[in-house]
Order: sequence, then structure tokens, then C-alpha cells
Amino acid sequence: MPLAPTLAVIGGGQLARMMAQPAIALGLPLRLLAEGEGVSAAQVIPDQLVGDYRDLDTLRKVTDGCDVVTFDHEHVPTEHLHALEEAGVAVRPGPDALVHAQDKGLMRERLDELGERLGLGQLCPRNAIVTSVAEVEEFGFPCVLKTTRGGYDGKGVWIVRGAGDAEEPFRVAAETGVRILAEELVDFRRELSAIVARSPSGQAAAYPVVHTLQVDGVCREVIAPAPDLAPELASRAQEVALTIAKELGVTGILAVELFETTDGRVLVNELAMRPHNTGHWTQDGAVTSQFENHLRAVMDLPLGSPAPRARWSVMVNILGGERADVGRLYDGYPHALARDPHLRVHLYGKELRPGRKVGHVNTYGDDLEDCLERARHAAAWFCGDLGNESE
Amino acid sequence: MPLAPTLAVIGGGQLARMMAQPAIALGLPLRLLAEGEGVSAAQVIPDQLVGDYRDLDTLRKVTDGCDVVTFDHEHVPTEHLHALEEAGVAVRPGPDALVHAQDKGLMRERLDELGERLGLGQLCPRNAIVTSVAEVEEFGFPCVLKTTRGGYDGKGVWIVRGAGDAEEPFRVAAETGVRILAEELVDFRRELSAIVARSPSGQAAAYPVVHTLQVDGVCREVIAPAPDLAPELASRAQEVALTIAKELGVTGILAVELFETTDGRVLVNELAMRPHNTGHWTQDGAVTSQFENHLRAVMDLPLGSPAPRARWSVMVNILGGERADVGRLYDGYPHALARDPHLRVHLYGKELRPGRKVGHVNTYGDDLEDCLERARHAAAWFCGDLGNESE
Repeated sequence: MPLAPTLAVIGGGQLARMMAQPAIALGLPLRLLAEGEGVSAAQVIPDQLVGDYRDLDTLRKVTDGCDVVTFDHEHVPTEHLHALEEAGVAVRPGPDALVHAQDKGLMRERLDELGERLGLGQLCPRNAIVTSVAEVEEFGFPCVLKTTRGGYDGKGVWIVRGAGDAEEPFRVAAETGVRILAEELVDFRRELSAIVARSPSGQAAAYPVVHTLQVDGVCREVIAPAPDLAPELASRAQEVALTIAKELGVTGILAVELFETTDGRVLVNELAMRPHNTGHWTQDGAVTSQFENHLRAVMDLPLGSPAPRARWSVMVNILGGERADVGRLYDGYPHALARDPHLRVHLYGKELRPGRKVGHVNTYGDDLEDCLERARHAAAWFCGDLGNESE
Repeated sequence: MPLAPTLAVIGGGQLARMMAQPAIALGLPLRLLAEGEGVSAAQVIPDQLVGDYRDLDTLRKVTDGCDVVTFDHEHVPTEHLHALEEAGVAVRPGPDALVHAQDKGLMRERLDELGERLGLGQLCPRNAIVTSVAEVEEFGFPCVLKTTRGGYDGKGVWIVRGAGDAEEPFRVAAETGVRILAEELVDFRRELSAIVARSPSGQAAAYPVVHTLQVDGVCREVIAPAPDLAPELASRAQEVALTIAKELGVTGILAVELFETTDGRVLVNELAMRPHNTGHWTQDGAVTSQFENHLRAVMDLPLGSPAPRARWSVMVNILGGERADVGRLYDGYPHALARDPHLRVHLYGKELRPGRKVGHVNTYGDDLEDCLERARHAAAWFCGDLGNESE
């Protein structure tokens, strides 16, 4: 009899890589399906297969002998997930939940229905599926157009101020066969994120609501907890996230990205059903990291405390810049670590490329300004924005 | 050019396994020499070779292309380490330091010399190499006899109250070709451990001095910091550890196990030059774990802060007991994790066998009694001492 069940993980990115750390502590063997040799998670998980997650035979092979399968990303086709379930593998999160993180149109429809049925009021910005520029005009300018599938990190999102702006989205939609969702342009004060973990048994744990700073649709900074957030808005955000997790039957981590509107409400922007960039602070700032609670949740083990360990935690992403003369990230260590012996660095084993997320740094402490300065300095240094040049 | 240098690690036990977690965060590739297929660290480090650490060709193969080699244990022959150094590999800790963790006779000789030369006073219990029962009688009963090499976890140590007790040690010595060291039987209040990290550049960091409870020569519990330790004794213990690290040229983690004598002194018992059981609390209780600081030190990167993150931290080992009807450790999770959402569990991927270290639990908080109760309960539960029976 093996010492523990094996968990299959589909996708070899940094999220799978960071699941490996708590898996080592828990004594939980992982089996990885990586999209290529030597990708981020494939560097650190011995039991691996290289193959295409869109191929059902490959998915059957990697899950053979595994009780449970989970994901680094949301791109596995729904019909394959149903096939795995029929073969007796517990798919967590399951296809009927995951589809709401794959298709923004279905997500909006379901959340609008939930808000009404449960008396929760408006959960989402006003929205509608649109099939022509004329329908966008009817919806009203300015608005946001989004592809219902396939967008991430700011891709597949357009701010549309007139009919001319609406042509490109429909061209992309026609090329890729996805639908277009129109949403009101929300007047927001800032973006928030509410992360919860939920197990198949129904146990749930809510992390503190954080402030997330996005630049060009990409997460750059996270502050936990969100400074000066009204307690009733924090509770509302957690309640919304817990309700979505329960009603959609999410297992594992659910990240709910929200707008805090200028008129004092929270509205759901995006859902992700996996560990999320806005939860990376938990690795060093919470009793139990989002990665460990994702593993515990999908294995239906009791969840760990999501309580923060410090007054403030800050996460800043390390993103590849435009400069080509930057040395290896590794060469940033002597300065960054000597300057700040409390700095926590997480690198993903990726080469620097413009705009690519290659790592992040975490800081924590009693003084938010100090945490921000240390994390921003370190991230900028690793990116080469402070003269970290190769020789 | 690779993203980072590769660090070779000799030995596939739980210490190498726990180095893998910070190596993932640091983006530092590890290459493992494992003593067998599927041993503890081999489960979690993809780049691995299975072979014998006593074979120089095997050592050359695993270090090929690595700038630095470090260790999970102290058993690699000194002459092989010199050969690797001559081939241009940085051996950390180096053979001239490591020999003091391999040979207790050389260690005592060197520490006695150091204490005298540097005016530090007595560092060790009174001791002498003995070659016959008559010489033990001359040294004086009662005393402790130890094999100078090869002992660990209470093996190779005898308390000798008369000539009759001294025969077995000399029989073992004759069989294995090691020397016998006689030491005074120290009248001690408790055992302490002082852990420091030191880099080749000479930077050093000292962790808080901890209380360690040994049962039959095996570490069972650690409390950090040692309760009610006089500040001058804590400083003395740290000073002794830092001095030994510097004078012996240790790189990486040095653990100094000490006696706190009933007359208020600290005396060195054992040295280990690798992450140590008495430092496992740092994984959850310190800003930088001993495993991360070991990696940083041997790679000559700036060290991380050794500061504690909580008032108290407690580590309790999970040891296999005598019962054969205990289920898998994994099956202990539902109760242990549900009872204590703050519990931190570290399992080593090993089967339960009597007396075998198979994992540990960490707790931390403001209330020492609460930390002790939670950690002891969880460890006992996993061992099967509280009715965690297989069905």
C-alpha cells in the first residue's frame, strides 16, 4: 500500500511549482502533466509526463492510479473533465464549477441568477452578451468588451468608447469562435481580491480581503489586508466569495477579483479556481498558504487556518522588462538579500522575457510603508530597473 | 547560460528533502545523490542519481557541472572530499571542517585547544582517548565511552559505571577499527542546541538557543527559545557556536548540542555540520528556515534573518513505535488537522518502523503550554499512541 494517495496536477507553470512545496511537507506525492520539458513545475516534480492537456488519452495516462486531479490553469476542455469523472477520477474543481472560470458569459449569467435568487443584490457589473456593433451601441458607450473565453492578464479585454473601438473584438471573436460580453465601465476606487478554500465536504476558509494593483491587466502588487477597507465591505466580499464557492460547488482555491466602486459597493470582476497571484502573500504572511490549502481542499483534508501572521503583508511581482541587457535573476541575490535579510523571494525557474511573470517577493511587518518600499525595491532590482546589469 | 548554478546534495534523507522546499523558492536547482530508488529526498528532487557516496567515481559524476556540493549526512570519506576539491568543486562544509563532525576524538582535541588558545575556558566535558579498560579505570568511573566515528541517535555511546561495562565498547571498536573516547559523565540540568549559519565570505547568523529533549539519545522535542535560560548562558552558547564555525571554517549550518550543567555552565556535547533536528522549528517559527540558510550559506549568498516569528515555537518528532497495527501516517490527517488548524506537519515519505524518524510537527504561539500540548498530541496521534488504528 502506498504511503499516501497521488494527486495529479495538470499544467507545469509556477502555480504547480508552488504546490510542490506544501506537497513535500504533507508527504503528498504529485504527478505532473507538463506542457514541455523543463517548464517551471517540471523542474521540481519528479513524477511527470510531458504532453498535451487537450488530448484525452494523455489526461487518462497522467491520472491513471490517481484518485484526484487538479489544475495549474483553467484550459482543460470540459468534455475531457467529464470523461475523467466518468472513469472514476475526482476532478477538483469539477467541470461544472470550472466552466464558470473558463467562460465569462456563463459566469455572469450564473452570478446574476444567484444574486437574485439568494437576495444578495447585484453581484456583477451590468452585462450582456452582444453579437454586433449595433448591440454594443444599444448596450451603451463607454463599456468594456471581453471575449468570453481565452482571455487572461489583460488579453481579450477592450475598453470601448465608440462604435469604431468595437470592431476589433468582433474580429477576434469571429477568428476564435468565442462570444463577446459587454459590461458597464465600472467607476472603481480600487481592485480587491477575496480568496477562499473549499473542500468537497463543504468546509471553507476565507483569507483576508486584499488590495490588488493591476497595471495593463497584470497583477503587480498586493497588500494584505486591503488598507482602510470598511469592515462591512470586507465581510461582503468574503460572503460573496464563500457563496460563489458553495453554490458553484468549487473545490480547492477560489479567487474572486472585485471592484470596490466609488459609491461603496463591491462587484465581481473575475473568478479563478486555482491558487491565484493575489494570494501569493499567504506563502509567508498566513498560517496556511493558499497552495497548502488548495492541496488540502482537493484531497478533502481539513483546511488550515487562513489567518494572517503579521499586521501587513505585501507581494510584488517580478516581471520581465523591455531591456535586453539584464543579467540572470540569480545574479540579483547578493544585493537584494544583503539589503533586506527579512525579504522572501520566490523565483519560478523562468527566463526573463518582456512582460513575463518570473517571480515575486513577499514582505511582512508592522509598518506598511516599510513593507511596500522593501518589496518594490527588491522587485525592481531583480527586473533590472535599478541598474542590475549583466557585466 | 543556465538560470542559476546547480547545487549537488549527497544523501537522500529527510534533510535533503527539506532543502528542496527553499530551493524551489530560490530558483536553485538541486542534483541529488540518493542511496536508493525512491528514498525520502529522491521522491521530490527530479535531477538525481542513485549510487554509493563511498565511491569517488559516483561522487565525480553527481558533481559534474556543479560549482558546489553539500550534504544530507556526514559520512562521505574525507579523502573523496579532498579529491573533489582538487577537481575544482567547492565542498561545503569542507573536509577539514567536516572531519570534526565525523570524528569526536578530533573534535574534542580541537575544541580543547581552541578554548585554551582563545581564552574561552572549558568548552567540552573532560575527555581522553582510551585504548584499554585499564585506561578507562584511570580516567575514572562513572564516565561515558563513545566511538569516535559512526555513532548517531544514541548508537555508539555507553554509560560506564565499572570495568565490566567497558568491555563492549572496546569490542565494537576492535570490530570497526574506530577509537574510543572517554568523557566525564556531566551532571546536567538539560540539553541545549545552538545553531548558526556561516558562509564562505564569513557572514554568520545565530538562531535562538533552544531546549532539546532527548530520549534514548534521540531528539524528541525542541522548545525555542529555551525557557528560563539565563541571558549570559544563551550568549555564551551562541558565542561558542559562532567561534567554532569561524575557527573550524564551517560553511552552511553548524548545530552545537550542549549540556547546561547543574552548576550553570554550557559544555559542548556534539557537533553537526548540516541542518539539524533541533532546528526544524525554524521552518515555521523563524523568518528564514535553517534549510534556506544552509542553501544560502553554501552558495555564498547573503544569509536571511534567523529571528523568531513567534514568542514560542515547539517541534515534536514523529517516531515509529512498537505497534504493528498502526495505519498510514496519511490517515492521521483528518483528526490531527481538524483538531488544530494552526498545526504544521512535515512528513518525510518514509514507512513507519520502530524508532524511525518519519516526520515532525511544529506549533508556535504566545502560550508555551498550549504549543506543547498541541504538538505532543499531534505527534502521538500520528505515531498511533492515541488510538489512531488502521481498520
